[in-house]
Amino acid sequence: MKQSFLFTKTRKEAPKDEVSKNAQLLIRAGFIHKEMAGVYSYLPLGLRVLKKIEQIIREEMNAIGGQEMLMTTLQDPAIWQKTNRWDDAVVDNWFKTKLATGSDLGIANTHEEPLTNILRNHINSYKDMPLYAYQFQTKFRNELRAKSGIMRAREFLMKDLYSFSRGEEEFREFYEKCAAAYLKIFDRVGLGALTYRTVAAGGSFTSGFTDEFQTLSTAGEDIIYVDKKKKIAVNKEVYTDENLRKLGLKKEDLVEEKSIEVGNIFPLGTKYSSALGLVFIDKDGVKSPVVMGSYGIGLGRVMGTIVETLSDEKGIVWPEAIAPFKVHLISLGEKGSASFVYAEKIYTELQQKGIEVLFDDRPTRAGEKFADSELIGIPIRVVVSDKTLEKNGLEVKRRTEETATIFTETDFFALF
Amino acid sequence: MKQSFLFTKTRKEAPKDEVSKNAQLLIRAGFIHKEMAGVYSYLPLGLRVLKKIEQIIREEMNAIGGQEMLMTTLQDPAIWQKTNRWDDAVVDNWFKTKLATGSDLGIANTHEEPLTNILRNHINSYKDMPLYAYQFQTKFRNELRAKSGIMRAREFLMKDLYSFSRGEEEFREFYEKCAAAYLKIFDRVGLGALTYRTVAAGGSFTSGFTDEFQTLSTAGEDIIYVDKKKKIAVNKEVYTDENLRKLGLKKEDLVEEKSIEVGNIFPLGTKYSSALGLVFIDKDGVKSPVVMGSYGIGLGRVMGTIVETLSDEKGIVWPEAIAPFKVHLISLGEKGSASFVYAEKIYTELQQKGIEVLFDDRPTRAGEKFADSELIGIPIRVVVSDKTLEKNGLEVKRRTEETATIFTETDFFALF
Repeated sequence: MKQSFLFTKTRKEAPKDEVSKNAQLLIRAGFIHKEMAGVYSYLPLGLRVLKKIEQIIREEMNAIGGQEMLMTTLQDPAIWQKTNRWDDAVVDNWFKTKLATGSDLGIANTHEEPLTNILRNHINSYKDMPLYAYQFQTKFRNELRAKSGIMRAREFLMKDLYSFSRGEEEFREFYEKCAAAYLKIFDRVGLGALTYRTVAAGGSFTSGFTDEFQTLSTAGEDIIYVDKKKKIAVNKEVYTDENLRKLGLKKEDLVEEKSIEVGNIFPLGTKYSSALGLVFIDKDGVKSPVVMGSYGIGLGRVMGTIVETLSDEKGIVWPEAIAPFKVHLISLGEKGSASFVYAEKIYTELQQKGIEVLFDDRPTRAGEKFADSELIGIPIRVVVSDKTLEKNGLEVKRRTEETATIFTETDFFALF
Repeated sequence: MKQSFLFTKTRKEAPKDEVSKNAQLLIRAGFIHKEMAGVYSYLPLGLRVLKKIEQIIREEMNAIGGQEMLMTTLQDPAIWQKTNRWDDAVVDNWFKTKLATGSDLGIANTHEEPLTNILRNHINSYKDMPLYAYQFQTKFRNELRAKSGIMRAREFLMKDLYSFSRGEEEFREFYEKCAAAYLKIFDRVGLGALTYRTVAAGGSFTSGFTDEFQTLSTAGEDIIYVDKKKKIAVNKEVYTDENLRKLGLKKEDLVEEKSIEVGNIFPLGTKYSSALGLVFIDKDGVKSPVVMGSYGIGLGRVMGTIVETLSDEKGIVWPEAIAPFKVHLISLGEKGSASFVYAEKIYTELQQKGIEVLFDDRPTRAGEKFADSELIGIPIRVVVSDKTLEKNGLEVKRRTEETATIFTETDFFALF
């Protein structure tokens, strides 16, 4: 894409009321627009990143047998009343609205109830399971405060998968599969080295533990204790001598860290299936409620965490797999000059090879182009100018490098 | 995909309160689930169709210079008050909600206001235009009645593109480009022969006409007058002698038809840019408000219209480009039998060739498999059984055909 075509502009300053580093950088670089606290639109560059994160998650969910669907935002109170999650005194972050006819509706904050209800039409027998359904759907949470940018928004895109199993053992088998898939996802999006499967409290669903995926970050709101050798962590809430003994971990191997929860997986038992009547007939003709599990990843949370943890003082540093473009091609020559024509040739060749490239063809001064490039954070910067032409090459700098190197055209294309 | 894996089941009956043909068939075939009147979840088969429609629209919008983005559902009343569209007395189909702090929020029914507001950060000069931004975003409309299935829902996915031009002429040029792109889209999704660019009233934005795209259907709520030779139509609301003269159409060439509006494009003039202060500095240093246009297609509307117009008494008939799968492979043999093993081989080969195939590997009786196949409506049905093996072939029937034909394996694969 030509940068003269891209409609967003970079900005020197983020809105004054924006306190989070992730949103500050993403707004300044033209990835997002702040509609209000905790509510952000995704501009073309931001949507490209979001879609890449989505596609990685989709591939890994399909690989473990997930089937994609799409549920609704508007929610009928009736099914939430059955699980006692309609009342604001029980669930305090609902947005609610009303039909023109006067009846109450919910604005979905999660989707256990509607999916359990849908599956009453599709699960009857033990032959209909196991079953794993997921979606990428916007969730709405009426948070009192929203100061973490796209990491904790009032409106955000989430992948939520729900598992439906015939018993505890079958559930547990998938749970471990999904945990492994999550580690792959965080690895693929570029957070692998910083992200730990983390033992957390069971909450109301299980007497055992549940699992979170926590990424080390000074911007994090959680405290975890990390065993870097074993590649596992323990959330502060379960950091007791007894639990560590159960988990086979030693206090002296654990380091306290701040972290961001980028994903969670947890057993739901039969709470929803029992309340909503999702039962199946087993091999012996006996009816039992379905055993469920829930597996979430917030896409904006992941994107925000990447910005928080990998950016530097000049701007964002995107991992290659989710960068909006792979190459930032910068021409310093005037339109029509020899070096500009050469840059156009490189642009065309990159496109022909299917390499995503943002071509800075704007009549802007060099300093501004370089600053924009550092701020936007595309992995490979390539500069074409009279100077590089003289040297018969291209000036290549990775976003993570301090200095640029002259490459021949052949060596440059060998990078891909 | 193996049908034994697909989690949805077909149903003999749709819910009793469902009166629309499109939703009845889509629910029975397992494409959608009715959450409440006008609110439908998309199950795996339905989502596959929706995504294909989305991708066709995306390609055509990108081809005319559209840039994809994603705005929010939650809306700040302040920007809507500036255009006088916040008050329920002015816009009567808002869903509204409240922040935990007590302030009002809108649930977006359209996105002119937020986009115009966003672009105040990105448009300053005539050099920043023309600019075309679009999104696939859920719209919420608080309709009093919702009886048309996914054709007129309270919550629905829409492609909305907005054009930002420097003057009337530049706007008009894009408007015609987009009209041509719309005809391509309706052609590609399989509605080309039934869909007419239709002259409609200008509404509050223009003294001239606007354009709708209307698909002939007895389920339609609109009345249009069609000139089939000229491939153009006129909405009843502007069907006057004077207008026909202006348009160069003759009454005797026009046939009255019922139709469904599948898309619309219309000028917005400077209503939103003036109200929200989206101005640009032209070549002469003069400030002017940006000239805008709006271009919508409801994806569910398109999908529902296809079901309404192309289905038959046995079920849905999907056009190839948007079918959930291209081939429905049906094995009548028992698992492990020679014919089942042969069907598995055909399944593998289709997949290797990248041809999307639903493989009915279920231990279900033949009659039920055939009925399901007609209901689901995949374009090509291929049956493998002891009988077809004897004849050394495969039994092929297109969904639009009455009778099946035996193909050799070579002839079958030559279809693709």
